[in-house]
Amino acid sequence: MIEVALYLIPVGLSDAELDMVLPQHNVLIVREIRHFIVENVRSARRFLKKCDRSIDIDTLTFYELNRHTRPEDVPAMLTALSNGEPMGVISEAGCPAVADPGADVVAIAQSKGLKVTPLVGPSSILMGLMGSGFNGQSFAFLGYLPIDAAQRARRLKEMEQRIVREDQTQIFIETPYRNNALVVEICKTMPPHLKLCIATDITGPGEKILTRGVKQWLNHLPDLNKVPTIFLLYK
Amino acid sequence: MIEVALYLIPVGLSDAELDMVLPQHNVLIVREIRHFIVENVRSARRFLKKCDRSIDIDTLTFYELNRHTRPEDVPAMLTALSNGEPMGVISEAGCPAVADPGADVVAIAQSKGLKVTPLVGPSSILMGLMGSGFNGQSFAFLGYLPIDAAQRARRLKEMEQRIVREDQTQIFIETPYRNNALVVEICKTMPPHLKLCIATDITGPGEKILTRGVKQWLNHLPDLNKVPTIFLLYK
Repeated sequence: MIEVALYLIPVGLSDAELDMVLPQHNVLIVREIRHFIVENVRSARRFLKKCDRSIDIDTLTFYELNRHTRPEDVPAMLTALSNGEPMGVISEAGCPAVADPGADVVAIAQSKGLKVTPLVGPSSILMGLMGSGFNGQSFAFLGYLPIDAAQRARRLKEMEQRIVREDQTQIFIETPYRNNALVVEICKTMPPHLKLCIATDITGPGEKILTRGVKQWLNHLPDLNKVPTIFLLYK
Repeated sequence: MIEVALYLIPVGLSDAELDMVLPQHNVLIVREIRHFIVENVRSARRFLKKCDRSIDIDTLTFYELNRHTRPEDVPAMLTALSNGEPMGVISEAGCPAVADPGADVVAIAQSKGLKVTPLVGPSSILMGLMGSGFNGQSFAFLGYLPIDAAQRARRLKEMEQRIVREDQTQIFIETPYRNNALVVEICKTMPPHLKLCIATDITGPGEKILTRGVKQWLNHLPDLNKVPTIFLLYK
């Protein structure tokens, strides 16, 4: 029997085999859980089958938590946990509660004094940072860049200042079909002493983590259209 | 045969069994590598033995990279990689190049156009964030807080502003024997609408990840003296 807790269960970032990116321990935990809070039921079912083909998915209960969920419906999702049953949180890709809606339900569990247990798994933010060669003693993840041109220019300026003044690596993402335009924008507007790391398809067959000076990239523009990518800026 | 790359090889944060915190894949990679850049040779040898008792440690080459290493000695550490042999980077705990000296050698590998491949493993920063229930769409890790009282007060003020104005989770660490004093300082100086998450012994037998209002902590001060702890602040 596993401890009664809200387990935060990472999933893969790519189609890589699970034992490439998840500890065996995670599968042992998953097998013992019957109630899952998931970003998407279909992909959660697929993940659970991949963990262990013998899991009888139809006996499990799923609670969907995503941007369509009404906030007032979230607390009730933890009823099984309050009643002494372990529960799991599974998001679409990577680590739950980092850059996805899972954080809301973790906050509620914390406020109710329920135990929360994160499991180890792949994070494009962390793996991008490791591979970049940039400062790992001070870094910020900013999520998506703003779409509005003025706000976006301001954000880029702010990132530049934090790199220079605070020695802080800046990490961000973009809606995948705008990746290519973003790279050009960064390379054209950022001062030449800054470096850009472009990390694509982390853990996947096309994994590339490349750090270059912002002006160097202009001569070798990659095609990142619709490719999952994380961007890191530093000096 | 594995691909020729600089593999960034995470180690455990606690005494937990390796299959609790590392994918099996990592062990397969480790077995194929004969040249390691390590923060500490003794603990790297211990880690490799734990990965696979059959590894003949005495046939491996270790290059020590830590705060005693002269920067001019770092580039030569990558000679085997330049010559077509895979290499590994192993730090004292957690993920190499995040909050430790490994980033320098990754930066050099990137500048030489050598392939860098991060592997999955436990990160107290990321796992603390997952378990906190705080904003995972925007967060910053700031490393150690300054020791000087005035600088420290300024840093705390700055963190407060970034939480309020930018909705950004602030993550930081302290020299372990000062953990207790730090908690009191935070609880006394931060406004009551902020929350502090204290995450101790992540993945270890005494793992605790607890989020409370800053004033609530004052009534239940934990003893964190010399316990590995990561702190997170948010609203």
